[in-house]
Amino acid sequence: MESISVGLLGLGTVGCGVVKVIENHQDKLMHQIGCPVKIKKALVQEVNKVRDVDVDTSILTLNPEDVLLDPEIDIIVEVMGDIEKTKEYLIQAIRQKKHVVTANKDLMAVYGPELLSLASENQCDLFYEASVAGGIPILRSLVDGLASDRITKMMGIVNGTTNFILTKMTKEGRSFDDVLSEAQALGYAEADPTADVGGLDAARKMAILSTLGFSMNIDLDDVKIKGITEVTGEDLQYAKQFGYTMKLIGYAHREDDRVEVSVEPTLLEDSHPLASVHDEYNAVYVYGEAVGETMFYGPGAGGLPTATAVVSDLVGVMKNMRLGVNGKSAVSPQFSKLLKENEEIYSKYFLRLHVEDEVGVLASVTSVFSRNGASFKKVLQNPLQEQKKAEIVLVTHQASLKNFEKILMELRDLEAVHLVKSTYRVEGGNA
Amino acid sequence: MESISVGLLGLGTVGCGVVKVIENHQDKLMHQIGCPVKIKKALVQEVNKVRDVDVDTSILTLNPEDVLLDPEIDIIVEVMGDIEKTKEYLIQAIRQKKHVVTANKDLMAVYGPELLSLASENQCDLFYEASVAGGIPILRSLVDGLASDRITKMMGIVNGTTNFILTKMTKEGRSFDDVLSEAQALGYAEADPTADVGGLDAARKMAILSTLGFSMNIDLDDVKIKGITEVTGEDLQYAKQFGYTMKLIGYAHREDDRVEVSVEPTLLEDSHPLASVHDEYNAVYVYGEAVGETMFYGPGAGGLPTATAVVSDLVGVMKNMRLGVNGKSAVSPQFSKLLKENEEIYSKYFLRLHVEDEVGVLASVTSVFSRNGASFKKVLQNPLQEQKKAEIVLVTHQASLKNFEKILMELRDLEAVHLVKSTYRVEGGNA
Repeated sequence: MESISVGLLGLGTVGCGVVKVIENHQDKLMHQIGCPVKIKKALVQEVNKVRDVDVDTSILTLNPEDVLLDPEIDIIVEVMGDIEKTKEYLIQAIRQKKHVVTANKDLMAVYGPELLSLASENQCDLFYEASVAGGIPILRSLVDGLASDRITKMMGIVNGTTNFILTKMTKEGRSFDDVLSEAQALGYAEADPTADVGGLDAARKMAILSTLGFSMNIDLDDVKIKGITEVTGEDLQYAKQFGYTMKLIGYAHREDDRVEVSVEPTLLEDSHPLASVHDEYNAVYVYGEAVGETMFYGPGAGGLPTATAVVSDLVGVMKNMRLGVNGKSAVSPQFSKLLKENEEIYSKYFLRLHVEDEVGVLASVTSVFSRNGASFKKVLQNPLQEQKKAEIVLVTHQASLKNFEKILMELRDLEAVHLVKSTYRVEGGNA
Repeated sequence: MESISVGLLGLGTVGCGVVKVIENHQDKLMHQIGCPVKIKKALVQEVNKVRDVDVDTSILTLNPEDVLLDPEIDIIVEVMGDIEKTKEYLIQAIRQKKHVVTANKDLMAVYGPELLSLASENQCDLFYEASVAGGIPILRSLVDGLASDRITKMMGIVNGTTNFILTKMTKEGRSFDDVLSEAQALGYAEADPTADVGGLDAARKMAILSTLGFSMNIDLDDVKIKGITEVTGEDLQYAKQFGYTMKLIGYAHREDDRVEVSVEPTLLEDSHPLASVHDEYNAVYVYGEAVGETMFYGPGAGGLPTATAVVSDLVGVMKNMRLGVNGKSAVSPQFSKLLKENEEIYSKYFLRLHVEDEVGVLASVTSVFSRNGASFKKVLQNPLQEQKKAEIVLVTHQASLKNFEKILMELRDLEAVHLVKSTYRVEGGNA
């Protein structure tokens, strides 16, 4: 091969990062691939925009077909975002026998299996390392590095925005709204932060991770989602007092052949490896039957870090081209999907109750738990400012989600209980 | 392929782990490779020994040629240790066109380049993920996951024994000797712990890591080595007081095209990701120009964790067999080796001095530093029990190793300085 030509779809933050990484590390790429890599065309929304990199405007186009149908382009790098339109573009590219590297988690979480199967039929590679946890090579680690093991649990801090917000709230005692504004000003949160703070972005990544880690097609709809918008400073203070750190955790657990996948604010024991992952960093904790505990840590977003994942995927495609083995590395899922029922999902739980401060209330509260098979790891009662009211803070031992939901319902029915709030999963340490 | 036959050299802790992982995860392996994997022969030192796994004794042999020359064996898994003899075995295996997976860091640190080049000539794969940091897929992450980036720094906690010892000494205030005995009793340290506590084991791993990460043949002899045998409880107390955590750090740094590689007890700022890697766990921190900070964490030793790395390598070999592309994945080093001189190696340093407690001593001490271009980040003076003696504890800002060594020499020449001790590198945080 004289050179390899890449077509870019999108030239925003990540796209500019890809251009920089290819330019700055051309020697290293050449050394590995044996020929130069050049960007031949890039689809943009506006040609004459000021960009973070110098690109020859003659390679820019507003017409997707200039990229998708160019017979000289070997590989399409998709960093434009969006779902439906992008899917159509990639289908067109794959039908033209072009390999695809994408950073698009929204797309892969929904149409991943369909696109992968189309790519495979067309002997094309479709790589998407950058779609989860930016610069951390977590997908390869699951698929290749831990190829021999049976992964039973993954826990991910896979959204940088929410980790930044929770870290600041914890360390500086500030409110959610206050920190969100700062994150927006710093570019760590988008103008519309709903997908981040609501947990949808993390859920997309967990669908991709659990599909690969469990070798089972997990859909986005299978992921239970709860965001961080209701996390309060008081919750974080209690967490600290109890030796926990609050994180938005994507949780994927397999027992026998049944799985659960969720994204929810979670109290981690301070000794858990994920508890010291701060600011906008991401990390994925992976538990394998044979290997035990592992963790993969790094930047979860940003133009350059994400671009390294994209360009490393490019190197993978190009090495396969040299060997003539494209389209053969994806392994189809081994198992049919079996989701756990609520009575099979076990966790420790944290919750806060506002109650009448009178004789027998704690007894009636605790009897709701014991009746439903749940016992306590920690109990704390504090008087509230409002007279004759008290707050009870509880952490349970392992209980099934079904029982815990029943407990919440019964607590809400107790006359002496005014408010049931701040219910969080608790992870790490011994049961 | 009907099935793939593996020959084992060695059936100790890791060998038994390999047998277990292959047996327990046969379905997953079959799904990925498309045919069963079986262990056909295993070289052992004793046939009738009680082992951790059930193996048919008919596959055991005392004769290496039964394994190395068996024409039906496709892949040799070497988990016997030793250097010279093992090298000969592997050369013999590769000449028979057998692929090799090894967990042997001692061998690879010394003969890696030679064996890799022989394997490549013979169209054979030679994989050695398990040789560094047990179950953590760090070599793949360097070679594939970060293929596009330029790695400038690696810091590794790559020896579980010393990390266990330092963790216990720090948390429980116990002495080196005391904790070493416990580690030996628990099986975390060998009867002869020299290679671990002296830093040689970590140095071997750093030679392998820096060869791959910097794409430059780094020999074991290029690694400066200092072990942990002289670390005292007092050092750890000062470390804590200053906000540092003591770890045995393998340090590999590239600036422009020159590198330094060392293994030495290092004081890490508490906020450094490696500072919270405790007990027998390993972690490798990797800094790439584009990706920034990443870290890979997991079990650094143990039969099953190490076996997952071995068997994941086996899967890699078998996938290559299926595609007919063995012996093509190793990339020869891109750069010639250029080691930094001592005047090019910069670090912060910690040290302790015992001095006469009299007028002008601190001034004469500090003038030694200023004369050699070093300033202080922290200074602490305490009276010693011995009358009219004091201890001065210093942390410098960045200074060259050459200057620091000159400083140490000049300090030793000062009449008022009785003892210069506990000189450690300091890493993390701002200069």
